[in-house]
Amino acid sequence: MTPTIVRTIARADPGDIRRLGAAGVATVHEAQGQRGLLRPSMRPVFPAARVAGSAVTVLCAPGDNLMIHAAIAVVQPGDVLVVSTTSESTDGMFGELLAESCLAHGVAGLVIEAGVRDTAEMTALGFPVWSKAISAQGTSKTQPGSVNVPIVCAGAAVSPGDVIVGDADGVVVVPRESVAAVIVAADQRLAKEERTRARLKAGELGVDIYGLRDVLAQRGVIWRD
Amino acid sequence: MTPTIVRTIARADPGDIRRLGAAGVATVHEAQGQRGLLRPSMRPVFPAARVAGSAVTVLCAPGDNLMIHAAIAVVQPGDVLVVSTTSESTDGMFGELLAESCLAHGVAGLVIEAGVRDTAEMTALGFPVWSKAISAQGTSKTQPGSVNVPIVCAGAAVSPGDVIVGDADGVVVVPRESVAAVIVAADQRLAKEERTRARLKAGELGVDIYGLRDVLAQRGVIWRD
Amino acid sequence: MTPTIVRTIARADPGDIRRLGAAGVATVHEAQGQRGLLRPSMRPVFPAARVAGSAVTVLCAPGDNLMIHAAIAVVQPGDVLVVSTTSESTDGMFGELLAESCLAHGVAGLVIEAGVRDTAEMTALGFPVWSKAISAQGTSKTQPGSVNVPIVCAGAAVSPGDVIVGDADGVVVVPRESVAAVIVAADQRLAKEERTRARLKAGELGVDIYGLRDVLAQRGVIWRD
Amino acid sequence: MTPTIVRTIARADPGDIRRLGAAGVATVHEAQGQRGLLRPSMRPVFPAARVAGSAVTVLCAPGDNLMIHAAIAVVQPGDVLVVSTTSESTDGMFGELLAESCLAHGVAGLVIEAGVRDTAEMTALGFPVWSKAISAQGTSKTQPGSVNVPIVCAGAAVSPGDVIVGDADGVVVVPRESVAAVIVAADQRLAKEERTRARLKAGELGVDIYGLRDVLAQRGVIWRD
Amino acid sequence: MTPTIVRTIARADPGDIRRLGAAGVATVHEAQGQRGLLRPSMRPVFPAARVAGSAVTVLCAPGDNLMIHAAIAVVQPGDVLVVSTTSESTDGMFGELLAESCLAHGVAGLVIEAGVRDTAEMTALGFPVWSKAISAQGTSKTQPGSVNVPIVCAGAAVSPGDVIVGDADGVVVVPRESVAAVIVAADQRLAKEERTRARLKAGELGVDIYGLRDVLAQRGVIWRD
Amino acid sequence: MTPTIVRTIARADPGDIRRLGAAGVATVHEAQGQRGLLRPSMRPVFPAARVAGSAVTVLCAPGDNLMIHAAIAVVQPGDVLVVSTTSESTDGMFGELLAESCLAHGVAGLVIEAGVRDTAEMTALGFPVWSKAISAQGTSKTQPGSVNVPIVCAGAAVSPGDVIVGDADGVVVVPRESVAAVIVAADQRLAKEERTRARLKAGELGVDIYGLRDVLAQRGVIWRD
Repeated sequence: MTPTIVRTIARADPGDIRRLGAAGVATVHEAQGQRGLLRPSMRPVFPAARVAGSAVTVLCAPGDNLMIHAAIAVVQPGDVLVVSTTSESTDGMFGELLAESCLAHGVAGLVIEAGVRDTAEMTALGFPVWSKAISAQGTSKTQPGSVNVPIVCAGAAVSPGDVIVGDADGVVVVPRESVAAVIVAADQRLAKEERTRARLKAGELGVDIYGLRDVLAQRGVIWRD
Repeated sequence: MTPTIVRTIARADPGDIRRLGAAGVATVHEAQGQRGLLRPSMRPVFPAARVAGSAVTVLCAPGDNLMIHAAIAVVQPGDVLVVSTTSESTDGMFGELLAESCLAHGVAGLVIEAGVRDTAEMTALGFPVWSKAISAQGTSKTQPGSVNVPIVCAGAAVSPGDVIVGDADGVVVVPRESVAAVIVAADQRLAKEERTRARLKAGELGVDIYGLRDVLAQRGVIWRD
Repeated sequence: MTPTIVRTIARADPGDIRRLGAAGVATVHEAQGQRGLLRPSMRPVFPAARVAGSAVTVLCAPGDNLMIHAAIAVVQPGDVLVVSTTSESTDGMFGELLAESCLAHGVAGLVIEAGVRDTAEMTALGFPVWSKAISAQGTSKTQPGSVNVPIVCAGAAVSPGDVIVGDADGVVVVPRESVAAVIVAADQRLAKEERTRARLKAGELGVDIYGLRDVLAQRGVIWRD
Repeated sequence: MTPTIVRTIARADPGDIRRLGAAGVATVHEAQGQRGLLRPSMRPVFPAARVAGSAVTVLCAPGDNLMIHAAIAVVQPGDVLVVSTTSESTDGMFGELLAESCLAHGVAGLVIEAGVRDTAEMTALGFPVWSKAISAQGTSKTQPGSVNVPIVCAGAAVSPGDVIVGDADGVVVVPRESVAAVIVAADQRLAKEERTRARLKAGELGVDIYGLRDVLAQRGVIWRD
Repeated sequence: MTPTIVRTIARADPGDIRRLGAAGVATVHEAQGQRGLLRPSMRPVFPAARVAGSAVTVLCAPGDNLMIHAAIAVVQPGDVLVVSTTSESTDGMFGELLAESCLAHGVAGLVIEAGVRDTAEMTALGFPVWSKAISAQGTSKTQPGSVNVPIVCAGAAVSPGDVIVGDADGVVVVPRESVAAVIVAADQRLAKEERTRARLKAGELGVDIYGLRDVLAQRGVIWRD
Repeated sequence: MTPTIVRTIARADPGDIRRLGAAGVATVHEAQGQRGLLRPSMRPVFPAARVAGSAVTVLCAPGDNLMIHAAIAVVQPGDVLVVSTTSESTDGMFGELLAESCLAHGVAGLVIEAGVRDTAEMTALGFPVWSKAISAQGTSKTQPGSVNVPIVCAGAAVSPGDVIVGDADGVVVVPRESVAAVIVAADQRLAKEERTRARLKAGELGVDIYGLRDVLAQRGVIWRD
């Protein structure tokens, strides 16, 4: 139970991470059986935010960002900080200076189940952030915690090195060992969606394409004028 | 109590619907005696979203969009889908493919007391949506429900064929039989507001224009330096 | 306990108000010892909203804006209306016409622990507003209240003439008697941040700059591979 | 759209109302196809609260109980007041004096999507109340509204004369025209539950009684040690 | 802005405090013009909780109860601890040991805009507590704060020495300088309620007793069968 | 990613489980370094509820209790069902019949991040339940899920066979491999608390017992009259 900073973690293949990022949150979430989604209270600070990277997990005391500073000492370019707190907080635990430090070390983005501040500056820097609040409330740097241990963030279990994908629809986590299988499933899904999209744009109905008229009948739904 | 899809509904006059849309949510809401507003938790996916159309109502099981597919089979151009669930859900019950299908059939917009996903794509398509959440959480297509029956959506009772008006301020429903009266009241209100606006811009005070100095006095409010 | 409209209040020096506004919410909040922040549920209607001014406080009945009209009769150019209600409300208590009236009298912005409406128009006018809700729900003009008495707004105590600073991160209140001290502390903080920013952008670590390696050790945090 | 107090409403048969009350909220809700449940935010003031009666609907302005007083002028013994507000409120719109007045006129209970106060007194009187908040915040008696018009209360549409059933699990509304069918369905359900209860108490498994082993297999769920 | 523990505060007369306590929260709140009520999210830990006493105010860091310990060093018998945090927290900042310490020093109760724990033990001890959460989440004892400075607790401004009244309906604060006037108003209100109660129990209608038939007519409310 | 029911899990020693139960939630939570607490939204259905047992984890679709039935087929006496859903739900997924079935198989209690119903009956049966809602909303038995896989419940990661402790303060999970260490730490804590309790009851101050006068001085807190 000793608070610990783990320096070395295994990461997924960069090419695989890019492919998951290109697929997007909704597709990845479906491709892994509707698992791994963070709660919808996690919203991007600016609408164009988009990220895919390896999770460096951070467990902080509420209102204290000591461990975020510690985490930046062990990141590699392309990592995504995933921050949770030991009890709920909306304090602004991350701001412009930390964003500058992240950018200097190649951190690709931040996912934090707490608040952030200096959001105008973060938007100007183009540093993608998902948080559950925006708050100017500052923090201390005095309370211990851990880096790169398994955490729960916004209802999802995240282990160090898992792949994090974020976009306008939210954030999803893919366990590192599932990455290959999820890419296959995502590609299949995207190909199938492409075909379905063409048919729907041409005016075909979902009830016909997906065979739902039978489902409706089996469930006892009647049609009438 | 049989789940039912009603194919044919009465709709308001398209010209009347346009006039209500032009008046906007706040004015329409006032014009019908401050009734019919959906809860403020219903927010547009993109700020410029604006719609006016006839309600095609959809009652779904939570996390299941079978009945949205069924509804698209009975819409007419200009309709607005109004979706409620039998118990509360924030799942992403509507996404890009359904938006494409809606556009192919002339659906003017979506109002859903649940979540939506693929919001970047929906914004790019310009398909206006009001929802209570954004979530990548996908859905099944297996549970029965109804189309074009009276529903409650975000605290407001909506019947098929009622007029739905949505803009940056939210969503309001106008019962079909009230449309004519509401247009008259809205026009009167807009004309009056035009006159008041000119006086306020010229620096006259609301307390003078509306006769509020008397109200303040009657209520026992005192002025002092 | 008589409801009262106070016409004359003391205000801070305009140059001081400008300096606090330039420092921004996060810096001002830190500079006064992490006090005076309104709850993070208070959000700007448009992202670029930014204001600094003297508080004219308004206490309304929920869903009644009589006292906002009364307040506009006693404002001076540069003031910020700060509105609270005697019980919680999300009604749209302020809209375009009141915004026009505010602009005609030089009001610099609005902070309201309730709802607002006509948000598209307000954005077009560039009138900065922070509220806890957007709602078309209209209001009455019949219930008494007070202007320029001490109030609590979104969890912060606000007295007439206090300085209000608002930006993308939220809203903070500076007691009038603290203005000079806060400016000094904000300037020191900004200068220090400038130096820290340069070092962080150059890749130095926060754990080194702030001496956090010692803190981590003292708290029993261990590093391991 | 004129605010109206309707004196005369049709009510269900008292024996039928009693039978629905005996079945309880969960059974009645199932028996009418999982419809008509008020949101779970509606909680009884004391745990033993239980009621069944005919709805006298009341639409109030938020924080104003004028129309509750008006409603008591038109109730009959055994009625249940069902109160909603035109915008959200948690004010204590009903207290001990109104409870005494209700008891004097035979009102069987209160369902209110707002707050109540004097809860210790109400508990001592044994007057059953379901509300979404407890708050000492008092109200005015000045704003118009309606009695015995269709309303939406806590997400459910309620018409005057509908049957209201409340217990520890919440509140459900049965449309007056559905009462006979719901009683039949409730009786069937209760009989079936009685048989199932005996089997479950004897240690039979739900997966066997309900044939769920097949469902699990069809859905691809596997068993393993 | 130095964190400070103020040892000596002025208190109201014990007899006056008792009279406010006997009147109860709802009556006191009305008697001072519907002001001073804490938000309804503040609930008693056990239903029979009831208190009246002088406020000893405590401002803590979230999740840190150092200053509660400090406050017990300056209390007098009959005081009520009123605790707020510099940012929002639901942590269990007060438990059985602190309750024992409070009882040993005659503290009459606790009002805390945060969480508490050991609620079974607190109930057994009969120590009355109002909080916004129950949580076993423990706290540190390391962060500075203040005792007996003006604070905002659950939306109400509280100064040291103000009178706190709590019961099943919530918590209200009476500024020390208003105590005498509020007692007079509360007595008048109680006497009037006594007369009204008798008439309502005898079956007279509120619309007649309060003259509301005229109000209804003036507001345009019509009666019909 | 196949949905799976795991029949066999490792469990902690029954005597150890009893010792954790006797220590209670707050003590166990502290003893394992303030980890493992479920969110405070998880509340017992009746105040005297108290449980300690081995977690049988259940992952359900929202509003579908198929997998709870499946779980009862693999429980052993003394187990606690811990139920989570793939997206948020407040539906009443567990009621009297399931409680009877649980009792027949020796299940010691239920922790569910969703709703329950038949709460009066559950209270009468003395079957302890912690949930985030009470709702009569019924459920289907058609959607796949898993039993005895790692889940996240109310913000805490729970693995099959972990020890669950619940009481009036909430619910805490102890990883099976930590049980022995937590018991030692809990015993030490209880012994220490016993000594501290005696001193506090005798009137000693926490600031003296815990050495907090120094902490206050170091943090710059001043005492004044």
